[in-house]
Amino acid sequence: MASSRSIVGPDDPPKASKLLSGVPEEAFEAIDEVDGLLAGVAECAPSELVEPALGSLTSGGKRLRPLLLVLSARMGEPEREDLLGAATAIEVLHTATLIHDDIVDRAESRRGVPTTVAGYGREIAAATGDYLFAEAFSELARIRDPRLVRAFSEASVGLAAGELEQYRANGATVEVEAYLEHIRKKTAGLFQAACVAGGTLGGLSLVQIDALASYGQALGIAFQMSDDIMDLVGKPGLMGKGIGTDLVEGTVTLPVIFALKEGDADTIRRVLADPSPAPGLLEAGIEAVLATDAVARTEEWAQGEIAAALEDLGLLPDCPEREFLEAVASEVVGRDA
Amino acid sequence: MASSRSIVGPDDPPKASKLLSGVPEEAFEAIDEVDGLLAGVAECAPSELVEPALGSLTSGGKRLRPLLLVLSARMGEPEREDLLGAATAIEVLHTATLIHDDIVDRAESRRGVPTTVAGYGREIAAATGDYLFAEAFSELARIRDPRLVRAFSEASVGLAAGELEQYRANGATVEVEAYLEHIRKKTAGLFQAACVAGGTLGGLSLVQIDALASYGQALGIAFQMSDDIMDLVGKPGLMGKGIGTDLVEGTVTLPVIFALKEGDADTIRRVLADPSPAPGLLEAGIEAVLATDAVARTEEWAQGEIAAALEDLGLLPDCPEREFLEAVASEVVGRDA
Repeated sequence: MASSRSIVGPDDPPKASKLLSGVPEEAFEAIDEVDGLLAGVAECAPSELVEPALGSLTSGGKRLRPLLLVLSARMGEPEREDLLGAATAIEVLHTATLIHDDIVDRAESRRGVPTTVAGYGREIAAATGDYLFAEAFSELARIRDPRLVRAFSEASVGLAAGELEQYRANGATVEVEAYLEHIRKKTAGLFQAACVAGGTLGGLSLVQIDALASYGQALGIAFQMSDDIMDLVGKPGLMGKGIGTDLVEGTVTLPVIFALKEGDADTIRRVLADPSPAPGLLEAGIEAVLATDAVARTEEWAQGEIAAALEDLGLLPDCPEREFLEAVASEVVGRDA
Repeated sequence: MASSRSIVGPDDPPKASKLLSGVPEEAFEAIDEVDGLLAGVAECAPSELVEPALGSLTSGGKRLRPLLLVLSARMGEPEREDLLGAATAIEVLHTATLIHDDIVDRAESRRGVPTTVAGYGREIAAATGDYLFAEAFSELARIRDPRLVRAFSEASVGLAAGELEQYRANGATVEVEAYLEHIRKKTAGLFQAACVAGGTLGGLSLVQIDALASYGQALGIAFQMSDDIMDLVGKPGLMGKGIGTDLVEGTVTLPVIFALKEGDADTIRRVLADPSPAPGLLEAGIEAVLATDAVARTEEWAQGEIAAALEDLGLLPDCPEREFLEAVASEVVGRDA
């Protein structure tokens, strides 16, 4: 499943994905410009936040949300400056939520580098997160379209709720429905907001924007399920974090829900309950999950979401951007990182 | 200076201030409605956040920012529903920043009750703050006027920066200029945003909105200086927090800056540097400040800001709302809490 030209891999993916046939060049030029604008956001921060903001905004994020926004918009006729501003804002917002999450989780590393909280302490990290959160809405305000603020703020409300649900559910018995509800808010909401904001800026019809919203949500769900799988089978060098992180943090992912019902639930529960399990125990926990068909079932579910996402795209104009959104969907499951 | 009918006192002040002559009744009816809407925001939160959100939104906040917004708007002709939404949003945003600040400061109590972080832990508090922050922008998005989002988001960016500057300056040598820069962002920015948002919703002229912005900023600066004084001379029962809190937290306020130059700097510095000073040391530190004319000089400066604020109001229509904004300014310095 690993592919050196993965769209959504960690190593400078936008440029790498130019290797794919049918990629609209302009979309990637836009992402390159977004990279520049992100650096600009960091450089305009209060002096003590410049370094942490720059670090978090340029530490190898996949730029998937800006890419979705740009591609969605370019199916219509977006105003160029608004498009770049919104694409920048969604990555800034996403980064702010990661920084806040890492503070709460006391996470040490992300994408293979120390988190903002690990590198700069709670106070600086909190201020950086708050600054970026506010800056995202400040960027959006320049666009003067209240529908964008609504899409972003509703996604943010969901993110805050999802963050909490995940914390609350840690180590507990989680059912599939609760898991789905959680990842809809925590991951899929911002994917959806990216697509809705893009469609809105492109001036697409409401039916088309609805189709993009469904696509974004299904894609986000599949993306999260694929993340869940990688936490069990992925390679640390490629992922930028250790294996079994979710298990250690007590996060009950979809494969873990399946495995708890089919496999050696005692061992898995022992890992979930132990914030610093001995390496042997963690390994046994991962083995216990992999001994079931939990990963295969999760991948199957994710593929079902991808199929739904591709169907949603059928309502959109047949153009290079749509083809590329299809390619993004096809690559999300089974990616490296 | 204490007054049982203070506008900005802690005990149900909007109703209490009806005792003042010339108070526009409709403004207070609006604040009563905002109280109801704030409870609604909390009740619509994800289930686990309802209680902490309700607690923080209804724990005796002075509603000063919504009041400024409503009064500013009513000098023109605001659309009623937009006005209530914006007044609610600014209090929600203010509350979100207090919750985040208390997490970073590890504050135990505020307004005489335990902080959200003390009552519910970091995870719930962080999620509640994030939820309220996003919800404020979600409320604003309903109003469909991008100028409001801009006013609020710019104030929020300043708040995040001010939060950090305060933390960084803790215990350090702070000059008056740096102090002013800090409180402009940390306190005055949201006062200013309240007045600008109100004037915008009322359809006032740009010149009038500018005058309101200057008024709001000067009022906010005076409010913060008055807060600084109360930390040294206020009564705990009235303030809802102990005396000398700023000193204990290492926060260098304006009277402390003055006292460090004029008085027993060694003792003051020892208190600033000690996160849990013995009661005797704290008392000696407060005495060392009070032995100088630092409080009088700070009050003088605050009165100068108030005079400037009153002058700004001269550019606005002569109406009950303007009179009341004048009364708010006159009461801010020398208030109980």
